[in-house]
Amino acid sequence: MREQWANSGRDLHLVVAPTAVRASIEQGLRDAIQSGRLTPGTLLPPSRSLSQDLGVARNTVAEVYAQLSAEGWLVARQGSGTRVAALIGSIPPVPPAPEATTNPLPYDLRPGQADVSTFPRQAWLASARRAMATAPAAAFGYGDPQGRPELRQAVASYLARARGVRANADTVVICSGFHQALWLLGRVLREQGHRQVAAEAFGHQSYRTLLEDSGLQVAPVEVDDAGGVPPSHARWGAVLLTPAHQFPLGFALTPERRTEFVRWARNTSGVIIEDDYDAEFRYDRRAVGAMQALAPEHIVYAGTASKTLAPGLRLGWLVLPERLFEPFVAAREQITGQASVIDQLTLADFIASGAYDRHVRRSRLAYARRRRRFVEEVSRHLPSGRLVGLAAGLHSVLELPSGLDEAEAVRRAKVHGVAVARLDDYAAAPGQRRPSLVVGWAAPPAHTFTSAVRRLTTSLTPDRRTPPAR
Amino acid sequence: MREQWANSGRDLHLVVAPTAVRASIEQGLRDAIQSGRLTPGTLLPPSRSLSQDLGVARNTVAEVYAQLSAEGWLVARQGSGTRVAALIGSIPPVPPAPEATTNPLPYDLRPGQADVSTFPRQAWLASARRAMATAPAAAFGYGDPQGRPELRQAVASYLARARGVRANADTVVICSGFHQALWLLGRVLREQGHRQVAAEAFGHQSYRTLLEDSGLQVAPVEVDDAGGVPPSHARWGAVLLTPAHQFPLGFALTPERRTEFVRWARNTSGVIIEDDYDAEFRYDRRAVGAMQALAPEHIVYAGTASKTLAPGLRLGWLVLPERLFEPFVAAREQITGQASVIDQLTLADFIASGAYDRHVRRSRLAYARRRRRFVEEVSRHLPSGRLVGLAAGLHSVLELPSGLDEAEAVRRAKVHGVAVARLDDYAAAPGQRRPSLVVGWAAPPAHTFTSAVRRLTTSLTPDRRTPPAR
Repeated sequence: MREQWANSGRDLHLVVAPTAVRASIEQGLRDAIQSGRLTPGTLLPPSRSLSQDLGVARNTVAEVYAQLSAEGWLVARQGSGTRVAALIGSIPPVPPAPEATTNPLPYDLRPGQADVSTFPRQAWLASARRAMATAPAAAFGYGDPQGRPELRQAVASYLARARGVRANADTVVICSGFHQALWLLGRVLREQGHRQVAAEAFGHQSYRTLLEDSGLQVAPVEVDDAGGVPPSHARWGAVLLTPAHQFPLGFALTPERRTEFVRWARNTSGVIIEDDYDAEFRYDRRAVGAMQALAPEHIVYAGTASKTLAPGLRLGWLVLPERLFEPFVAAREQITGQASVIDQLTLADFIASGAYDRHVRRSRLAYARRRRRFVEEVSRHLPSGRLVGLAAGLHSVLELPSGLDEAEAVRRAKVHGVAVARLDDYAAAPGQRRPSLVVGWAAPPAHTFTSAVRRLTTSLTPDRRTPPAR
Repeated sequence: MREQWANSGRDLHLVVAPTAVRASIEQGLRDAIQSGRLTPGTLLPPSRSLSQDLGVARNTVAEVYAQLSAEGWLVARQGSGTRVAALIGSIPPVPPAPEATTNPLPYDLRPGQADVSTFPRQAWLASARRAMATAPAAAFGYGDPQGRPELRQAVASYLARARGVRANADTVVICSGFHQALWLLGRVLREQGHRQVAAEAFGHQSYRTLLEDSGLQVAPVEVDDAGGVPPSHARWGAVLLTPAHQFPLGFALTPERRTEFVRWARNTSGVIIEDDYDAEFRYDRRAVGAMQALAPEHIVYAGTASKTLAPGLRLGWLVLPERLFEPFVAAREQITGQASVIDQLTLADFIASGAYDRHVRRSRLAYARRRRRFVEEVSRHLPSGRLVGLAAGLHSVLELPSGLDEAEAVRRAKVHGVAVARLDDYAAAPGQRRPSLVVGWAAPPAHTFTSAVRRLTTSLTPDRRTPPAR
């Protein structure tokens, strides 16, 4: 590296890197202009003299001047030399980005998160290798907004086998996660003239927001211990349900309610969106099959790899009734296109080879164990608390000891280093059920799990309302 | 496999698979109900007698009945046996999906497509392997809607080095392709109160549609052989430009025009969206650097892996000015979340390891060769045609021999088995330039390339207006 003065009277260092002579001179000049060290209108030395100063070929400097002129940094005029362009002054520094919002507490018991530390990296790579060995070249193009046929076939077979869904490769659409799918569904419903949809009165606020984003009003569907309560009237274009495992309350929709919802859909031509987000994880019996098979012409089935594999894949799937199929795929094509083709091909192999079933089975055992330990911990260390909901999924609703409200419970847990959610965080209107926490016991790493739960129960125990000494 | 009559008077075959006894009985009953062979109200045989008929354990049949009851197919009432539920009648068959729209012609010279047959599968897998070996577990979670920090860092370094972009990992956002990015930008601009934006009068119609989708009016920016013409007035919230290589006309924005657009942006606080879609491919000289560095506080830089690697990856990147950063990331988080984390980590390694540069270099040589052959073929076999635009990118504009209009030219090419686009397909208003075709010479497989081009020139030759005999 040799440093040189580039032109008189200015403190301009041009550092010439021996392996990238031209690039380093070019970048040095750009930086000098951007930082204001070379001001607008400044005359640059002739290429001959700068090249001598720097000990490089004259042609190199001439090329740098030509490049920077083409980019608008310099202006070269016949007979009057090369100057810094008039426009360019000191450019403000690149702004720092805001901090990503992460959980600042050491113990994370918030719901909705799977244990991603068990992602089957080796098996996934093996599937990727097989997929890449056999994929046709055309697969890497813009492709089908419905998704790769290999994956649609694998998903359709899996859903038929594991969830009793009526599907084939032609009615499955692969999406980049359920959020995107729900947003697109809202858009399609609005385009079809609907103004009002409904969602369970307990559920993700973000889902209501997504539907509202398309200009839909979102009415609440009452929820009791038998799941969502079927409507008596019929003004909704669609209703969003979690039949296998109500989120977050944790109940299954009873057979009678299933039948009533289907009757409502048939009578009103309404659509049921069946969010089957964690049905793979039922611990006391086999999971109840999907509702979709009862009325495939009225029910959108929605599944996801976010709970079974990892949210980072951003892969989910819909099985769509005929009347929604074409508008949905068209909206997906216009705005997002298909999901990553390599992940799609890999997941297709992962399912077809049986690796998906093996991973789900292993995860089910591990989550069942965690849930059992969680239930034991609560019954031993917080006997005044009560757990509601099925032995299923990745979270439980914990009714608080009497006299303790949700805000106070979250505050106390926080003092003990535990992040946890209030039931009212998921309620369309607050205070409808007994004060409760929603505890996701799947997310913490195995080695912190017991501490996390113990800290939570300790923090909520009526006779120990102050934090323990450190 | 043994077949059995399941109940009297009905042609109900239940096929019991020896390795999946319970599942096969369950599915057989579901199918029978769905197809209407078992009608609503039908009394099923008691579990004891069906189990004897089928030669399976009684408990198995009892479990099947319980499962199908929970799912709503059957209704079991104390003392009156198990019946098919009243609701369920014959369910219409699953509708067939519409055919995916593919090119039905044997030779595809439509623009906008890279040669995906050269996708570097082995190098990509090697990067995936390294990425999976080092990724933290948390990477597989919902993650940062801005994108993985590893990839943002790799992209920022690459853009600074290869395109002179002012970026760091904190100002880069990873997107699922440019379509999605542009749609989100339109949404953010509309939320910030803008009503009108502008796009070059020649460009992708789908881009105009995406911007209009957010409620924006899209004014045309006149385009001549010096690129887009800077505006004299200032009512646009943003202007979409292709400075390095106007799409589809193929010119570079002159330095003076760059400066004028930047001045417009500074004076009006307007935003310039720099669509840098194929700048890696310039064959006659080094590519002109990105315009973004002239005014990072006013210019959105947009790049993509769709031309350099494959559209099927659905990966692109933006470098955003401060005032757009937070609203853009928030919109992305709400509606789509981040892109596939495995692809992101893999691409980060692919860039950092130098594999990306190697692939771009190889592709540049291959495309330069193709373009040279295309130019030779046209000058030899269609001397009355004229090619306009730079030696760059993946397509050329071919001005037609006089007397031939675009619709007729496309029709003739089609007769010869060649798909090709009209210039007016990309024009905000038709007939503004000489009748021309836009020829993408990157897409056809190598072994059909010469035939494709020869057929095109033959079809357009004035003295051979009828198709050749087969």
